[in-house]
Amino acid sequence: MTTNEKIAKLRLLMKERKISAYIVSSPDYHQSEYVAEYFKARHFMSAFTGYVGTLAVTADESALWTDGRYFTQAELQLNNSEVKLQKMGEPGVPTVAEYLSERLGEGGTLAFDGRTIALKQGKEFEKMVTAPKKGSIEYNLDLVDAVWDTRPALPSEPVFIHELKYCGESCASKLARLREKMRQLGASVHIITTLDDIAWLFNIRGSDVEFVPFTLCYAIVSHNDAQLFIDERKLDAQVKSHLAENGVHLKNYNDIYAAVKTFTKNDTVLIDPDRINYSMYANLAHEAEIIEAQNPTMMFKAIKNTVQIEHIKNAHILEGVVFTKFIYWIKKNIGAVPLTEISAAQKLTDLRSEQKGYHSLGFSPISGYAEHGAIIHYRATEETNKDLAPQGFYLIDSGGQYYGGTTDTTRTLALGPLTAEQKKHYTAVLKAHLSLSALKFLHGCKGSQVDIAARAPMWALGLDYKHGTGHGIGQFLGGHEGPARIIWRAPEPANETVLEPGMLFSNEPGFYLVGQYGIRLENTILVTKAEQNEFGQFLYMQPLTFTPFEVDAIEASYLTANEKHHLNEYHQDVYKAIAPHLTQEERQWLEACTKPL
Amino acid sequence: MTTNEKIAKLRLLMKERKISAYIVSSPDYHQSEYVAEYFKARHFMSAFTGYVGTLAVTADESALWTDGRYFTQAELQLNNSEVKLQKMGEPGVPTVAEYLSERLGEGGTLAFDGRTIALKQGKEFEKMVTAPKKGSIEYNLDLVDAVWDTRPALPSEPVFIHELKYCGESCASKLARLREKMRQLGASVHIITTLDDIAWLFNIRGSDVEFVPFTLCYAIVSHNDAQLFIDERKLDAQVKSHLAENGVHLKNYNDIYAAVKTFTKNDTVLIDPDRINYSMYANLAHEAEIIEAQNPTMMFKAIKNTVQIEHIKNAHILEGVVFTKFIYWIKKNIGAVPLTEISAAQKLTDLRSEQKGYHSLGFSPISGYAEHGAIIHYRATEETNKDLAPQGFYLIDSGGQYYGGTTDTTRTLALGPLTAEQKKHYTAVLKAHLSLSALKFLHGCKGSQVDIAARAPMWALGLDYKHGTGHGIGQFLGGHEGPARIIWRAPEPANETVLEPGMLFSNEPGFYLVGQYGIRLENTILVTKAEQNEFGQFLYMQPLTFTPFEVDAIEASYLTANEKHHLNEYHQDVYKAIAPHLTQEERQWLEACTKPL
Repeated sequence: MTTNEKIAKLRLLMKERKISAYIVSSPDYHQSEYVAEYFKARHFMSAFTGYVGTLAVTADESALWTDGRYFTQAELQLNNSEVKLQKMGEPGVPTVAEYLSERLGEGGTLAFDGRTIALKQGKEFEKMVTAPKKGSIEYNLDLVDAVWDTRPALPSEPVFIHELKYCGESCASKLARLREKMRQLGASVHIITTLDDIAWLFNIRGSDVEFVPFTLCYAIVSHNDAQLFIDERKLDAQVKSHLAENGVHLKNYNDIYAAVKTFTKNDTVLIDPDRINYSMYANLAHEAEIIEAQNPTMMFKAIKNTVQIEHIKNAHILEGVVFTKFIYWIKKNIGAVPLTEISAAQKLTDLRSEQKGYHSLGFSPISGYAEHGAIIHYRATEETNKDLAPQGFYLIDSGGQYYGGTTDTTRTLALGPLTAEQKKHYTAVLKAHLSLSALKFLHGCKGSQVDIAARAPMWALGLDYKHGTGHGIGQFLGGHEGPARIIWRAPEPANETVLEPGMLFSNEPGFYLVGQYGIRLENTILVTKAEQNEFGQFLYMQPLTFTPFEVDAIEASYLTANEKHHLNEYHQDVYKAIAPHLTQEERQWLEACTKPL
Repeated sequence: MTTNEKIAKLRLLMKERKISAYIVSSPDYHQSEYVAEYFKARHFMSAFTGYVGTLAVTADESALWTDGRYFTQAELQLNNSEVKLQKMGEPGVPTVAEYLSERLGEGGTLAFDGRTIALKQGKEFEKMVTAPKKGSIEYNLDLVDAVWDTRPALPSEPVFIHELKYCGESCASKLARLREKMRQLGASVHIITTLDDIAWLFNIRGSDVEFVPFTLCYAIVSHNDAQLFIDERKLDAQVKSHLAENGVHLKNYNDIYAAVKTFTKNDTVLIDPDRINYSMYANLAHEAEIIEAQNPTMMFKAIKNTVQIEHIKNAHILEGVVFTKFIYWIKKNIGAVPLTEISAAQKLTDLRSEQKGYHSLGFSPISGYAEHGAIIHYRATEETNKDLAPQGFYLIDSGGQYYGGTTDTTRTLALGPLTAEQKKHYTAVLKAHLSLSALKFLHGCKGSQVDIAARAPMWALGLDYKHGTGHGIGQFLGGHEGPARIIWRAPEPANETVLEPGMLFSNEPGFYLVGQYGIRLENTILVTKAEQNEFGQFLYMQPLTFTPFEVDAIEASYLTANEKHHLNEYHQDVYKAIAPHLTQEERQWLEACTKPL
């Protein structure tokens, strides 16, 4: 079927049910970053494959919204279809609600599968439909299902326990902490729909979604019960007994929507309005009192305990071995053996899969040579795949899911001679990277503040990068984990989280010259206590990633004495941590490229 | 009269009027930082002279609230009186409202002069009195007036025009900008009660309040009228004609409370809830629609135009001459001639009064030798006055009101040999100072972010200072001017102001060793445009103050190459700007102490 044929089929279904407009959205029912194939309805309907996108269909028009990262891709993929691209954020481009408000007509019905619509967005639609239009919303309608005859099944991969030796805190202890927090907030019951929060809380993992060890499920926790809504076929006897021991009762996956209807006026229900879908909210019994607050599990899981930290450190040493071997392999083979973006990325994945405790890829590797390095979310395909040549920059950004931790590393390699300007840019990014990991700061600082330390050396040169310097990282969980981030333009300054010891972030400043090259240098860093004195508790961010920087790209005269000192110390740490795991040949090479500058 | 006698007299008046509790607060009717003698009712009643303090009196108790800066002073001054000190912010200490809520009793009446009570505080009292207590508030009652038989009159110093050549924008143009902003906010009328905003808007100055060239007045601006509520005796023919030409009508000072009662339901009244007193709000006609937003004049006045900047720069050169001559004089005389904290400060004031365009002192100079330097708001009195000896640190923080600008400078001088630790601390503060003035940053940054750049070098050593790094500065207006500040713990992150070109701040990191010495280094800095490119508009903060740092206190080996470069450049600028105004002897000395390190 072509896109137009699919949309025509959808329109027939809409007409039958007197639906004036239908929305197909990207997320799964859990606001996940990565979603299972089952949920890629918008991709199926529009042929557009980007992560962010919303399709709206009326009786005679259709349009797709996406953001600046995807304009070119969307234009290409929507080509030959009736779907008009709506470039989000560009002047004069309406929001989905604004667009529909002009087309819905009096008394019209707007329909969608409310499980795939964020609460905030759903409320916007409500506002648009009800007040001025006297229309209505049907939120319980998955029309795409009838069009999509080849739709994959909901995933049902086995669930396994994230062992205590890795996570360091029992499910019972986590439930007790959660209930204490619920008490403080005056909540009798808490609905959790985010997959990473549930995986963390119950110490379970799964493989329902690519790149993240999550299992599709929901949870309701009250003071004397905990219910897990999940396809029971995914659970073996061991997992079932683990859950039972921790007082967790099993329910069917989709039964949560019926369950939340049964709350009474004696219930005070804690929900996180940013982490719940519209259907869940709409189904909630109206008599119950609603308390809106961040999921307490967000902060709990962001702060890693000492057992976790030990395992996370180990995972990062394994990952450092992988990256170091990989860099050596590239350096040795470039110009001698044919290499491409895809074959190089495959080599890295192969090296990683040999490591003990490795589970799966953390995300699709970004393996970009020359101008492809400047595409921040580049993914090499058979069509774009470039040969690596012995000159210029090659950027590799990759991470793995280990049972002990989630890794995320970026290095930019000089495959051959560099220009003075290339070295200047590399050194600028390195200065930014070192500046953040050398920073000592007082407890109370937020990500939007420490980011200034990272950017200052680049700003001094009139340079910048249009992405955050750091995102939170889970332990054998999401590669992007909230609530804190290191980004100077904080989206919500009033709610920004203070940096706490035990939080894990990426440190990944970059520089991108479109059409030429990209540079990004990324380590994982751990917020760690330094001294406490009359001024307060000092903190710093300890690097956990051990992989050498590119000495051939560093213009040492641009580094301050402090920066050199910090770099030399880091390189010594790299050597100490990684050398024991290398062949003699690799070790000699590492010794040379970690020599003090 | 003793404090107890005054309070007894107040209680008689309270009893007559059936008042259960009476509050005496510090501010004038305009939420001013400095207030005229007339308004020092709390000082009169309690003998406590600190800037911040609230006295509450009931039939059988009385208590005074003040903050940590004043605990020692308050204990001393309240001694021998019945007034109990309430240490604000200490554990277990109730707020004024909490204290009264326990003592007011059912149906009790709480009274105060609502003109001296901030709106937010007044609303707290309202909440406390009405709901649970079924009591009432009488906000229109200045009982202290009857006790205070020696109360000074309201000041009535002459008003003068702040000439166009200094301020660069006519009153008519400012009114037009204000009205445009009112239109955007949907306001038909705007009440302004803050003295600096009114002085700026109408280009008038006065001398009603020490240290600030303000005149007591209120204003109401509508789209077709502007009313100034002021004691007309303060205005000469020239000022009257200036105001008339700009369409400003005169009313009696206190008549504004009657005027705001006359608004109708057709009025939409813009008020700034943080910059209005409780009485004003309580008097506002209830039919009118209230729009709460920051006074638009706050941002207008914070961003200085090119004419202002030129005059501000000139004023700072004059002030630099004053400070440089002063430092030379101290250095020459220390150990040879008897000098004290008071005599030194007097010398500085004398030097300043010789400058062209000088109007008055900007604040009481902080002239602190040795351990007195560690008292952040130290004021030398006859009792505390120390002799300056040829050893250790001497801190001088002083500023002037020039017609062209308001200045604020701090230097810390080595009066003789320093220890290695003293040099280390001085150099740390210097690094912090230089770090902020060397920072280039993208437009969009806020004060809480750039402050990290200032503090980073001190945090690196485990040091800090418990005050902001910078406050806004007016032009021949307040030495502390909003809305932006440079302080990493922003009190209200959601409302923090972005730094804009044309804003003027102090840059004043410090270090304080209680009982030993204090170090603070303060320049005025101007937010200035650097390059604009694909990343945005870059900004930096140009120093306007030209006064040498203390070479005898700098441990050059602690400075990075960049810091040395920045310091040397600054010292060259100091020499260029100041040398032409010095005697030959002074010039030779300045040349020596601004030599590149």
